[in-house]
Amino acid sequence: MNYGKVVTTALGYEDAVERAKALLRDEGFGVLCEIDVAKTLYEKIGAEFRPYRILGACNPHLAHQALEREAQLGLLLPCNVVVQELSGTTTVSAIDARALLSVVGNDAMMSVADDVNERLGRVLDRLHREAAPLGAARP
Amino acid sequence: MNYGKVVTTALGYEDAVERAKALLRDEGFGVLCEIDVAKTLYEKIGAEFRPYRILGACNPHLAHQALEREAQLGLLLPCNVVVQELSGTTTVSAIDARALLSVVGNDAMMSVADDVNERLGRVLDRLHREAAPLGAARP
Repeated sequence: MNYGKVVTTALGYEDAVERAKALLRDEGFGVLCEIDVAKTLYEKIGAEFRPYRILGACNPHLAHQALEREAQLGLLLPCNVVVQELSGTTTVSAIDARALLSVVGNDAMMSVADDVNERLGRVLDRLHREAAPLGAARP
Repeated sequence: MNYGKVVTTALGYEDAVERAKALLRDEGFGVLCEIDVAKTLYEKIGAEFRPYRILGACNPHLAHQALEREAQLGLLLPCNVVVQELSGTTTVSAIDARALLSVVGNDAMMSVADDVNERLGRVLDRLHREAAPLGAARP
C-alpha cells in the first residue's frame, strides 16, 4: 500500500482498538475522533459491513507546528489509524503522513510528516508483536 | 491551493459552522466528527490559536462504495471541511477528494471522488453566496 502501512495483530478486534488507543497516547497522540464504520453504515443506510474502526489521532505539538505553516492543513487532519477484521484476522493500518502531506506541496510539512510516521510506525510494530491475550485460542 | 477549495463567507465563524453542517446534510453528508482545533490546542498544550473547526463529513453511500473497493480507505476518511477565522474573515475550505484519493492509485476511486467534489463544491458556493445575517454589520 502506497499511502499507509498495515500489520496484523494477534489481538481480537475490540482489544486491538483499545490497545491502539493506549499506544497512540504513549506516543503523544490524542484520539480526537473515533468512527465505528460498521455501526454508522448500518444506522444510516442499513448496510452490513465488517468490524471497522477509524481512530483520528492528533499530536497537538506537531499539529500546531504544521497548522502555523499551512493554514488549510486541517483538511488533512487528524492522522488516521484503522482497525478492522479482514479475512478473519485483526489488521491495523496507519496513514503514511509523508504520502498524505505530499499533496500539500509544502516542503516545511515533511519534517513533521517524518516525525508522525516514526511514532505511528512504533504503534503498529507494538501491535504486531502483541501476543494474544491469555485464554484466547492460539493457532 | 492544490488539495482543496477555499471561499470566504459573510457569516460569522459560529454561524458558518452551523450553516456548513446544515448544507452538508442537504448534500447527503453526516458530520461524523467535529474538532474544535483552538479549544483542543489550548487544553492540550496551552497554545492560543484562531477559531478553527474541522468537520469530518461522510456520505454513507459513497463511503460504502469506496470502502468495498479499497479496504484501507478509512485512512483517508472522512472528507474534511474547515471553517476558520483568517485575517478577520470567515473562510471555509473543503478537501479536493480527487487530490486526496490520488494517493491511493486506484482508478475506481475517481468517480466517487468526483461525486464528492461536486457536492462539497455546492456547499462552498452556497456559503460564499450567503448574506450576512440581519442586524450584522455590513461593509
